[in-house]
Amino acid sequence: MKNIFLIGTGLIGGSILKDLRNHYPESTLYGIDKNPEHALKAKSNKIIDHVAQIEDVKDAQLVIVSIPVDVALKVLPQVLDLVNEEALVIDVGSTKEAICKSVEEHKNRRQFLAAHPIAGTEFSGPDAAIHDLFKNKTMIVCEVEKTAFKLQESAIALFEKLKMRVRYMTPAAHDKHIAYVSHLSHISSFMLGKTVIQEEVNERDIFDLAGSGFESTVRLAKSSPAMWTPIFAQNKEHVLASLDGYIENLSRFRESVKNNDHNAIFKDMEQTNRIKTILKGIENGK
Amino acid sequence: MKNIFLIGTGLIGGSILKDLRNHYPESTLYGIDKNPEHALKAKSNKIIDHVAQIEDVKDAQLVIVSIPVDVALKVLPQVLDLVNEEALVIDVGSTKEAICKSVEEHKNRRQFLAAHPIAGTEFSGPDAAIHDLFKNKTMIVCEVEKTAFKLQESAIALFEKLKMRVRYMTPAAHDKHIAYVSHLSHISSFMLGKTVIQEEVNERDIFDLAGSGFESTVRLAKSSPAMWTPIFAQNKEHVLASLDGYIENLSRFRESVKNNDHNAIFKDMEQTNRIKTILKGIENGK
Repeated sequence: MKNIFLIGTGLIGGSILKDLRNHYPESTLYGIDKNPEHALKAKSNKIIDHVAQIEDVKDAQLVIVSIPVDVALKVLPQVLDLVNEEALVIDVGSTKEAICKSVEEHKNRRQFLAAHPIAGTEFSGPDAAIHDLFKNKTMIVCEVEKTAFKLQESAIALFEKLKMRVRYMTPAAHDKHIAYVSHLSHISSFMLGKTVIQEEVNERDIFDLAGSGFESTVRLAKSSPAMWTPIFAQNKEHVLASLDGYIENLSRFRESVKNNDHNAIFKDMEQTNRIKTILKGIENGK
Repeated sequence: MKNIFLIGTGLIGGSILKDLRNHYPESTLYGIDKNPEHALKAKSNKIIDHVAQIEDVKDAQLVIVSIPVDVALKVLPQVLDLVNEEALVIDVGSTKEAICKSVEEHKNRRQFLAAHPIAGTEFSGPDAAIHDLFKNKTMIVCEVEKTAFKLQESAIALFEKLKMRVRYMTPAAHDKHIAYVSHLSHISSFMLGKTVIQEEVNERDIFDLAGSGFESTVRLAKSSPAMWTPIFAQNKEHVLASLDGYIENLSRFRESVKNNDHNAIFKDMEQTNRIKTILKGIENGK
């Protein structure tokens, strides 16, 4: 591949390019970002070779789109308008249904592949990009049958170079699943942080008592609001359903505490301890 | 100190003894556990030298009580009945108000020190005990003025050997603070795990999509129900208040998502991002 373009030079896109540079040493890497500081930072961090503009994607063999999911709805059709007939365009956003719909009828739909790498950290921006972020992680691919055979093949080869395992799903199943295992985790963590910060008004020394348990549970509350607001908006129905389930479970637990139903409290926790086995599966790369 | 006794040979007590063995090499270490397997395990792991019975604490210079907080209410007065007049008895449970009350009128109250180390892992039992668990962590001490001067002094010397920083609080303030930064984190994590496990009935592959964010947020749901049920029961009022605040914040966030109020969602998260600075304080040992 001669020219690889990245649109959105943040944590995910930047980390992809850091690995691709090793695997495609012959390629020239270009970065496009609506924030010029991010693009320049990506260049000085050697994530990209050159800062480029959207029109330049006409020369690309590969375009990675890694931007907030609301912006992707507008940028993706625009990129598909501009690219040459050999180019592969991969979107890596955290929602898939609206994104797939945005290019459904595009004449170059077969040059597009919808993906979502289950990887990340709570940090953002080009400085957050790291090597090997995707190693042994899952790449969800949606509507693979709508991508041209040859481009399917190059995409999978690329994901294998990143040492990822590929899972195929429909966009609808993806958005539903991910509401539970990712979006709900972020909301539960943000609201925990908010609740404790509110209490701090009364109890100034409260964080002096916080230990590693609190730290772990609240870690995701460091995440970027600019990235997460459009995700929750776009996956609204599934996020609401997962939140309903969560609030109901919390309210029932609250009732058990209120009614001194220690047996119910114990059983609730004991049954959830099964998460030990499940997390062991995640750690071992399943 | 000739004889050090540990009642409850689990994660916390076992980890304390692992460190004390280095600092008091002349001492003989005894372990008491209502579960004989745990006591024997603690012996074979060299956490203790001998398995003992409750009556044996009459020979102790130091007794560490590290058992579920409901059992502590019965065991502590019994231990204070039995000990000789030189002994220091330290309780390290996660609640302090009921425990302090249980020995309030005891004739040997001045031999007792109420403490709570803000340290731990999601594991339990003698096999979970590790060295240096308490290094750079906080030890909360309650009602220090009710402990004899000389015994205050030995307790503080001991905590300094564990490299802990000591914070003095009333039992009431402790129980209120800790409901937010510890007990609520555990409930939020347990209920997140429960909600996702429930969804798994419909979506069998759901955990294949879980990443490190879910793993971190749900980590505390591995914790021991036998230890946590009495904690929530004993700290009932503060746990209910913290849960009310949390459920209210979640319900408001849900409303914002439902009403497409993206500005409110963004602001909620942006204001909570302050947790970054707070967690940096926790990491750097404040």
